Amino acid sequence: MATLPRAISDLVGVFERLPGIGPKSATRLAFYLLNTPISFVEEIAGDLARLKSEIMICGECFGVSESNVCGICRDSKRKTNLICVVERAIDVVALENVGNYGGIYHVLNGVINPLNHIGPEDLKIDELLSRLSKIDGPVEVILATNLTMEGEATALYIRKKIEVLGKHGLKISRIGSGLPIGSDMEYADMATLSRAMEGRTEL
Amino acid sequence: MATLPRAISDLVGVFERLPGIGPKSATRLAFYLLNTPISFVEEIAGDLARLKSEIMICGECFGVSESNVCGICRDSKRKTNLICVVERAIDVVALENVGNYGGIYHVLNGVINPLNHIGPEDLKIDELLSRLSKIDGPVEVILATNLTMEGEATALYIRKKIEVLGKHGLKISRIGSGLPIGSDMEYADMATLSRAMEGRTEL
Repeated sequence: MATLPRAISDLVGVFERLPGIGPKSATRLAFYLLNTPISFVEEIAGDLARLKSEIMICGECFGVSESNVCGICRDSKRKTNLICVVERAIDVVALENVGNYGGIYHVLNGVINPLNHIGPEDLKIDELLSRLSKIDGPVEVILATNLTMEGEATALYIRKKIEVLGKHGLKISRIGSGLPIGSDMEYADMATLSRAMEGRTEL
Repeated sequence: MATLPRAISDLVGVFERLPGIGPKSATRLAFYLLNTPISFVEEIAGDLARLKSEIMICGECFGVSESNVCGICRDSKRKTNLICVVERAIDVVALENVGNYGGIYHVLNGVINPLNHIGPEDLKIDELLSRLSKIDGPVEVILATNLTMEGEATALYIRKKIEVLGKHGLKISRIGSGLPIGSDMEYADMATLSRAMEGRTEL
């Protein structure tokens, strides 16, 4: 709209570039902010600035952190012999929100994706192997990459790499797959149904 | 999540307070911004700051503006004897996006809503009457408040007030209502169907 003031249309423009926000939501957000107290808008702007200046990558698990080593890796109550391997730092948030996982994490920073020219060397796989080789005693690695083609392939690749380490007492598992809770058999896709049948558990 | 760095959880917190953004979207947005170039984050912060400093309310129509009088009110190609009355400035954007309205606007800044203690004196109704009384010759006022109970009541109230002016050549209309384009009779609610039947047009 040519008649919309620049300060609003620019903001609508940047909001539209965010994931999951279309032109209508972007406009609604901009007008909402226009009618909020200036303190709230300043709070957002300040938090945005802090995001880039304060957040670091944890040197252990490669998740998000406020210091060289993140709060999860520093937490002495966590089992250091239970490592959950995920694609992205946001996956850690999803699993932590569940609340009952007591182990630590390893963020790969992506998946193997030849079409996008992302190979194993672009991911934190060597770092995972190095972490594993330093742990004494039994270890369980849960491969929790996404249930996509790339996530599955990456999980298989990592499993092979870990097996080559030849570590004793090492258990490798894949995050469970099947029908999501609350779902209806009728609407499930074939691949999920097939996986759910394979992964049936005894009652 | 207790283990999420403050700079991220604060940003997630402010995002959650925005309309239409829940906890999951807020987290996704924060992590998306974490992985974008700092220039983009600075652009958002800058546009937010400009929003509050540069946007004014138009002294004529009470829509958003960059100066005392907005671009629409200053546009000499627009019919000044066709005034569309809307609830909020964002409604002007919606109508301008359609593109074929050649008149001007009047933003009420809300609707009469006794439950929220908003009376006619809180809206720009007197200002509308004063604008109308200054116009010579025939005028059409389109009442385009929302099709809600409050919007309908406000439209009726304004119609009465305008009629009291006793202006010659004054036409008052209400924005058309009925079935939305692309909709299915079967799923329409009774009130809409009844209104659509009343408002049938000859083919």
